[in-house]
Amino acid sequence: MAVHPLLLQQFPLLKSLPADVLERLAGQASSQSFAKREVVLPKSTAPRHLCLLVNGRLQAIDFTLDGREVGLYFIDPGDYFAELALIDGQPQPELVISNSVSQVVFVPAAEVRPLLFSTPAMAEALCRRLAQRVRVQVTHRQILGLTNPLQRICAHLELLTLGGDGQRRIVKAPTHQEIAIMVSLTRETVTRTFQVLQTRGVLTRDGEDLVVDSARMSDLASGGTSD
Amino acid sequence: MAVHPLLLQQFPLLKSLPADVLERLAGQASSQSFAKREVVLPKSTAPRHLCLLVNGRLQAIDFTLDGREVGLYFIDPGDYFAELALIDGQPQPELVISNSVSQVVFVPAAEVRPLLFSTPAMAEALCRRLAQRVRVQVTHRQILGLTNPLQRICAHLELLTLGGDGQRRIVKAPTHQEIAIMVSLTRETVTRTFQVLQTRGVLTRDGEDLVVDSARMSDLASGGTSD
Repeated sequence: MAVHPLLLQQFPLLKSLPADVLERLAGQASSQSFAKREVVLPKSTAPRHLCLLVNGRLQAIDFTLDGREVGLYFIDPGDYFAELALIDGQPQPELVISNSVSQVVFVPAAEVRPLLFSTPAMAEALCRRLAQRVRVQVTHRQILGLTNPLQRICAHLELLTLGGDGQRRIVKAPTHQEIAIMVSLTRETVTRTFQVLQTRGVLTRDGEDLVVDSARMSDLASGGTSD
Repeated sequence: MAVHPLLLQQFPLLKSLPADVLERLAGQASSQSFAKREVVLPKSTAPRHLCLLVNGRLQAIDFTLDGREVGLYFIDPGDYFAELALIDGQPQPELVISNSVSQVVFVPAAEVRPLLFSTPAMAEALCRRLAQRVRVQVTHRQILGLTNPLQRICAHLELLTLGGDGQRRIVKAPTHQEIAIMVSLTRETVTRTFQVLQTRGVLTRDGEDLVVDSARMSDLASGGTSD
């Protein structure tokens, strides 16, 4: 089942492609809906498509060698995934599941792969994305190395606040359960820590967002007492 | 001080460039020697060059948020580094030091960056390299999550053995100290574990290499007793 070329054109990665190329890709693409907590991409198989999220929210998940679940990153509408397998043909290193009802477009790898490397704007976008993944993993590894749970949660919240100064905002904040998976702690520990942070005014809920006093959060993340 | 175009041509990343482009890059490149344990690239500055290792051996190192040193990966002759900053202009996420006397060629980022994205062979090579870094980080994170030191060292040695079946070889094996840094353990623990593995015949030294009984190593890495 093909998708409309205008749907593909909405994705930043593909928008530099000429209309005829987009039309050809759209003719070979397919679209699929996923219920909440459904597996979108299994781990350890090599996906043969570039996957693009139209709406909903996905999360990439891995398991430690002794079996604990670790959340890696979120995928939001407009974003793409399965790019590692597209590049090197190796298996998918992590599981991707839907955190809410989601619609995903699948574009065959054989069609899109040559375009990625021969279109400078796409090559640069892909390299920037991969560089970003490497950088997030570096930070994430540093966070998981922290033994104090309060410090670990604060360092993770700091990672989630992007740009701006002073007061920062985490838009559509992950749930306590989602954060717990991300930082390898229990949901109860995250809830307890959030209560402490909210009582002390370091964290304020604003609808679906969280507003962060970033100076004090940063102090707590580096092991300070933020008093 | 310029370098010879033939020197640049030896690097797999650059070999697809036409002779006149290589000559131009070589005219703007410079070469520098580093003593053992010298800092080649400091952390947290944005390097303005693509760096290529002519000879010697380098190691990328990071520090945990509470100050422990963690070795990330080795850089061998023919290899390049500082590619993250080249792509996104952000600071270098890790320190690069020389593990032995090393010669490094520096090519200005402003010259080489446009070529990376407009030369399909270079774009693909760069994407493959970054994908490989993401995959190694995924595995490395899983290994650091193991609490048993024997298991952690075996999982790391398994990661270092590439290709082949049955008996595998780690060419120019890292020292106990280098492995200790890689897996966040003391040198003493690594030496003690190596003695156990060598006594049991799981690991055999052959000159500079290590020969690994990969079936039993893999069993130990997954928490088995390998008896």
